Amino acid sequence: MKKFKVGVVGATGYTGEELVRILSAHPYAELTYVSGKEDRDVRIQTIFPYLKNRLDLECKAFQPEEAARKCDLLFLSLPHTVSMQFAPYFLKVNKKVIDISADYRLKDAKIYEKFYKVQHKDAVNLRLAVYGLPETQREKIKKTTFVANPGCYPTGAILGLLPGLRKELWDFASIVIDAKSGVTGAGRKADKTLIFSEVNESFKAYKLFEHQHVPEIDQELERITKKMVQVVFVPHLLPVDRGILSTIYVKLKKKFGTKELWGFYRKFYEKEPFVNVLAEGVLPEIKSVAHTNFCNIGLRVNEEKGLAVIITAIDNLGKGAAGQAVQNMNLMCDFDERAGLS
Amino acid sequence: MKKFKVGVVGATGYTGEELVRILSAHPYAELTYVSGKEDRDVRIQTIFPYLKNRLDLECKAFQPEEAARKCDLLFLSLPHTVSMQFAPYFLKVNKKVIDISADYRLKDAKIYEKFYKVQHKDAVNLRLAVYGLPETQREKIKKTTFVANPGCYPTGAILGLLPGLRKELWDFASIVIDAKSGVTGAGRKADKTLIFSEVNESFKAYKLFEHQHVPEIDQELERITKKMVQVVFVPHLLPVDRGILSTIYVKLKKKFGTKELWGFYRKFYEKEPFVNVLAEGVLPEIKSVAHTNFCNIGLRVNEEKGLAVIITAIDNLGKGAAGQAVQNMNLMCDFDERAGLS
Amino acid sequence: MKKFKVGVVGATGYTGEELVRILSAHPYAELTYVSGKEDRDVRIQTIFPYLKNRLDLECKAFQPEEAARKCDLLFLSLPHTVSMQFAPYFLKVNKKVIDISADYRLKDAKIYEKFYKVQHKDAVNLRLAVYGLPETQREKIKKTTFVANPGCYPTGAILGLLPGLRKELWDFASIVIDAKSGVTGAGRKADKTLIFSEVNESFKAYKLFEHQHVPEIDQELERITKKMVQVVFVPHLLPVDRGILSTIYVKLKKKFGTKELWGFYRKFYEKEPFVNVLAEGVLPEIKSVAHTNFCNIGLRVNEEKGLAVIITAIDNLGKGAAGQAVQNMNLMCDFDERAGLS
Amino acid sequence: MKKFKVGVVGATGYTGEELVRILSAHPYAELTYVSGKEDRDVRIQTIFPYLKNRLDLECKAFQPEEAARKCDLLFLSLPHTVSMQFAPYFLKVNKKVIDISADYRLKDAKIYEKFYKVQHKDAVNLRLAVYGLPETQREKIKKTTFVANPGCYPTGAILGLLPGLRKELWDFASIVIDAKSGVTGAGRKADKTLIFSEVNESFKAYKLFEHQHVPEIDQELERITKKMVQVVFVPHLLPVDRGILSTIYVKLKKKFGTKELWGFYRKFYEKEPFVNVLAEGVLPEIKSVAHTNFCNIGLRVNEEKGLAVIITAIDNLGKGAAGQAVQNMNLMCDFDERAGLS
Repeated sequence: MKKFKVGVVGATGYTGEELVRILSAHPYAELTYVSGKEDRDVRIQTIFPYLKNRLDLECKAFQPEEAARKCDLLFLSLPHTVSMQFAPYFLKVNKKVIDISADYRLKDAKIYEKFYKVQHKDAVNLRLAVYGLPETQREKIKKTTFVANPGCYPTGAILGLLPGLRKELWDFASIVIDAKSGVTGAGRKADKTLIFSEVNESFKAYKLFEHQHVPEIDQELERITKKMVQVVFVPHLLPVDRGILSTIYVKLKKKFGTKELWGFYRKFYEKEPFVNVLAEGVLPEIKSVAHTNFCNIGLRVNEEKGLAVIITAIDNLGKGAAGQAVQNMNLMCDFDERAGLS
Repeated sequence: MKKFKVGVVGATGYTGEELVRILSAHPYAELTYVSGKEDRDVRIQTIFPYLKNRLDLECKAFQPEEAARKCDLLFLSLPHTVSMQFAPYFLKVNKKVIDISADYRLKDAKIYEKFYKVQHKDAVNLRLAVYGLPETQREKIKKTTFVANPGCYPTGAILGLLPGLRKELWDFASIVIDAKSGVTGAGRKADKTLIFSEVNESFKAYKLFEHQHVPEIDQELERITKKMVQVVFVPHLLPVDRGILSTIYVKLKKKFGTKELWGFYRKFYEKEPFVNVLAEGVLPEIKSVAHTNFCNIGLRVNEEKGLAVIITAIDNLGKGAAGQAVQNMNLMCDFDERAGLS
Repeated sequence: MKKFKVGVVGATGYTGEELVRILSAHPYAELTYVSGKEDRDVRIQTIFPYLKNRLDLECKAFQPEEAARKCDLLFLSLPHTVSMQFAPYFLKVNKKVIDISADYRLKDAKIYEKFYKVQHKDAVNLRLAVYGLPETQREKIKKTTFVANPGCYPTGAILGLLPGLRKELWDFASIVIDAKSGVTGAGRKADKTLIFSEVNESFKAYKLFEHQHVPEIDQELERITKKMVQVVFVPHLLPVDRGILSTIYVKLKKKFGTKELWGFYRKFYEKEPFVNVLAEGVLPEIKSVAHTNFCNIGLRVNEEKGLAVIITAIDNLGKGAAGQAVQNMNLMCDFDERAGLS
Repeated sequence: MKKFKVGVVGATGYTGEELVRILSAHPYAELTYVSGKEDRDVRIQTIFPYLKNRLDLECKAFQPEEAARKCDLLFLSLPHTVSMQFAPYFLKVNKKVIDISADYRLKDAKIYEKFYKVQHKDAVNLRLAVYGLPETQREKIKKTTFVANPGCYPTGAILGLLPGLRKELWDFASIVIDAKSGVTGAGRKADKTLIFSEVNESFKAYKLFEHQHVPEIDQELERITKKMVQVVFVPHLLPVDRGILSTIYVKLKKKFGTKELWGFYRKFYEKEPFVNVLAEGVLPEIKSVAHTNFCNIGLRVNEEKGLAVIITAIDNLGKGAAGQAVQNMNLMCDFDERAGLS
């Protein structure tokens, strides 16, 4: 069988590397192009030695025409604001595109400009892009050629809240998301605040109420509920490589016990290939989702307070980035949704 | 000058060790007795080699009479339920006692019994014990001979909430405390869930709404406010040795901006030797309080939501246990409150 | 195609779990039996939630007859001394067996008894067992039904020394192996010295000259060289989950430059699917072999001293245990040697 | 009593910070000047909040004249090659100087130039500088006004070898030092290879045979033995904040058992305030020297091989840098050698 040809633009960052790792073992897709900023024109298996005998490909300086010539689908694992320089070209020459950056996630260019401090330059495709969270709009993803892959924090937050959204179980004004992320979420870059001796044995909150993922969460919750939603979101930096744990606090609009809410979640996500509502009473931990595409969920209701705590765990490079991107490719290409992801 | 003679019962646990470390360099107190369960009858400087040239003392199996004979004050760094077997004796023979366990923190024996699953056996001294959080009742501590040293989580939580309590800035029904603790908080014990390969590269919540520190927090908030308070408290286990970061969410009863609230906190804690309201906009991190007796505080108001997030960081073995115990001793003995703690 | 039926006895330890993880995605083998000491009679996908949709199997108390009935090949991931109670039965009923314990690695029962402090009870099968390091005796592994899977330290050490052994490049009396291992090497067990707060932020050597892997290394080097070899071996405990880095010092018997030795290694291992001699000048690191079955190698010659330093990195649970066991199964069953391992 | 006035030039790096931490609690010295490159003209207690109530001092852009005016002794915690621009001035105006950089450690300017890639510009003071390892030349340090503070790796290596050097117990041609250092050793700087997600869960060797500390170790061993010494030195990067463990392999020139060698070491270092030969059979670990000025030592002889393994542990910021610098100041100023260091 001839494999589907895919390329990764920006293959040497953490998400790019994870894409290469997953795609090099994918049963239906074949990596035919990788580019990277810093390690130009060397074999990708020299950069990532575990690819020996699995992939033999040059990692080159990025040339859009070459990428288009060699691939049917492109993963753009580029910094914010860079993706929108190249996505239009690939879409124009009829390539499928999955953009990992934030450039096409926020439907309102003004909000994009407020949070990312640059003007949006591609209003046309911004309208077309489908927000690639399969659990919320699988059918739309199947039909599109252009996916904006969700941010890591929004993935963990939305999957935790989703079951109660349409049923209006939550008081939407009450949502508090206390999220904790591993360090790969910040990318592979020289930054004094990210060096080992600063992050190790430490823990802190950052960007209180101001994180660029806040409007992304709000937008998606609003799209789903058709109501205005403004979450309180506080991200923290965890001294681990991979993983996000989101502790979500919501006021319940109706009386519910833990067992009832858990049963509802369990049923809601029963058929989802990558969402796991854990056994009753079991709470998720980062370690057991690391290196997977799973979102694990646990919850508990405080009946006296009329409040539920829902906890989700994902791998920020898996379900929070590269894994989800491959899941989206599987949907866009009509492959088994789980292909390459276990 | 003759030094004040003190002993540490339970010197080989993490808190006991930290007490020994601090006391061995204290200007006014002298360690004259240490006991430990597991390393009996060896020199304490053999167990902890950094005590070379600083302390020369046998670490023995615990004998209350010997301890009483050799000391003026005893730190009981014993497991919950064990302290109350010995505290009465020391108090009876007119020793000062600082109990690090939870045995004398909860004034209501019924609540103690509910959370610690044993009967309380010393109602008399339970009434006498002073809850040793100097920022809330320094004068009482100065006058007592018996201090119940606060739990680590309650210390971080109460210090974060205190400035707004008496002024009733908070909606007391709205308090949510999302706390994250390092692993020494669980003690030095063989436990499969605490081994390195389980905790490292992971993160999880535990004991949702059920942690034994919940009633302790509620009790102290109620004592201060004279109102009923029931906090929502979710503890998490951080892959670090030392430190607790508490992210506290409260609804404001009045309109406030960040600057105003920060100014109020700064002034409130100005004279406190071990509480640091950080520069405006700066958020605390665990690393900069590790190995200190400080509680660092940062905060921010979300005016649209009428909500404040207050973040506190302490070292769970410092201000959360041994450091605070020494601060209490300094008060009880009329030493400089900071002696031995910098 | 009908898959080959395999079982994992001892599926809830670290190596057992890794075996289950690998085998649940193996193209030619099917997991039909798993047993575990502590989590009896629950679904294995409840214990390891990432198996959702990938494996649906009960994890039971171990019953040899049931295991034999359901499987063609058994992985015995059991503690030392327990394997030899059960291996004879499986071999007798014509099952293939891969023993992960140390019970069948040391050909001399006296040495086994000296290092493992128990008598060896199965001399017959001890003679039959093939030491399963494919790079040293692939053909023998292909023909056997019983493999003794190598220890983690010996794998890293022998693969580093192998190219120079037959050619007698090394002064065999001079070999020093300074090895550093992650904590999963010690197993999933309650042990006070393994808890997070003891291991984290620390590093130490242990069992100087006395580690039970010393005779295993000596035996294999002797088998290959036909000379007597006694290595100096010093293991250390690294605060990481997975990985062993071995820094090996050898005196050269002939003059050699780095380039020449590197070229020789590169050629020697060229065809090996799981040994990677890195680009000239590049040294291996644990992180890039974690979660793989690779052994990465780098080296450098100190010409003045006539000494080479060879450094190897493996994942102690991958090439050092479960990965290698699956590689051995692939050879024993005439599958593609790499099946399931990328 | 009037305190001795000292300054720290370069107070915001890891070593500078540790100096400030130690000196702010020193009984005989008073910090009267601190400068830092990046956080100019702010209070030092704002940068390091744990200095609240302990130090109130502006951290300024470095001005040599101001520093000289305010201090009797200067700690130069500057990058290599920067120290020698300023040390001559301070010495000329009769200040005591302790240089933490490598600029005055290597007596042979040619070797300095080979390893640090710049010309040495201060031959005069290079001759005067005393290598500040108290255990090797305490009397010289007491009499000098200019100390070159030793490197971290040399401190751990030399203290491990010292007892056998003068007695010629070792075959000097056989010395192998396999050293492992925490990440603060690399300084507080933006560097892609030092970010958390690269170093964490990893381990690697670097600069084989080429590290700039090799000639420093050789020089000091030669000074002590009056023989030519060329050690084999392989440094590794450990995923911990602080600490160096050095595993040292030496051939014995005479027959020795472990007990005998241990007894000799124990006696040799008996009176040293900061060297701890651990109880027989006990091996050092990094954790128990972190945040101290101690060097802990353990050892074992392999009699068959005629080889000893000596293991030393220090805190690279303590005995390996700031702690040792303060010990040197204590000697130069005739204070109690241990002042401020426990």
